[in-house]
Amino acid sequence: MKKSNIGQMECSLARALAQVGDPWTLLIMKEIVLGNRRFDGIHKQTGMSSLSLSSRLSALETARIIRRSPYSQRPPRFEYLATAKGKSLWPLLVALTQWGDQWTGNGGVPLKIWHKGCTHGGHPTVRCSGCGEPMAARDATMLMSRRMKKDREARGNLRAR
Amino acid sequence: MKKSNIGQMECSLARALAQVGDPWTLLIMKEIVLGNRRFDGIHKQTGMSSLSLSSRLSALETARIIRRSPYSQRPPRFEYLATAKGKSLWPLLVALTQWGDQWTGNGGVPLKIWHKGCTHGGHPTVRCSGCGEPMAARDATMLMSRRMKKDREARGNLRAR
Repeated sequence: MKKSNIGQMECSLARALAQVGDPWTLLIMKEIVLGNRRFDGIHKQTGMSSLSLSSRLSALETARIIRRSPYSQRPPRFEYLATAKGKSLWPLLVALTQWGDQWTGNGGVPLKIWHKGCTHGGHPTVRCSGCGEPMAARDATMLMSRRMKKDREARGNLRAR
Repeated sequence: MKKSNIGQMECSLARALAQVGDPWTLLIMKEIVLGNRRFDGIHKQTGMSSLSLSSRLSALETARIIRRSPYSQRPPRFEYLATAKGKSLWPLLVALTQWGDQWTGNGGVPLKIWHKGCTHGGHPTVRCSGCGEPMAARDATMLMSRRMKKDREARGNLRAR
């Protein structure tokens, strides 16, 4: 399978990767969430080539993850804003950041994230929507749809449930 | 900047991307979490080339995200198991899956994830560790460390806080 076909799997994770699975794309989204929304600023902070940045911004716009908003008429200049689809990447960006805090680097926390106005000084964490208990892999049950099972059977050697 | 230098930024998200930011790597981790832990099975389900799979498994082992466990002596064969570092990728895999459920595909949910044994049938969601309230980007305060600020200033055009 080619990388360009990842999004055709019957799997939401694969489909998500097809749209935002590129490291540069996630670095761009980080910049936009941090408030760095213009081409030049994103260019400097990510260190990508202009060509790479242009093509990824276009792809993100086509996928309706960001939208352009003009901040100058002459010359025409734009800011890139996250749409609702883009804003809902936040749990993904937080998960990457927290994993990086815990398992990479020198023990410092480059970007501290906490709950605005919370008197407990809490940070984002994964909990059950029903009972509010903390959730990790061992606390989860996973069930594949019939379509996902069929898709996996067609690939052969179904080992997972 | 080259892709191979992303991990040198003073940013946990970038450092995380340097280790697990490749789409194939995350597809492999998904398979292992689903219980598909052998080379052949992962090979078939991801559709990657053997060479790509081998090199990514090696990188994951070097980064101590997975470890090998023998299941046959003759011929020598291994299963790939997630280490503690690998298991803590779970929030990231869930975030990708849920974003994919919501924004890609046909409205179906290929893989249902819920809280084992919870009488409310809850699913994983991002909440504040302090007060338990749901958290999205708008509910968060972010503060950069002095080192991260300096790193960004050195790149020029600091626009983010």
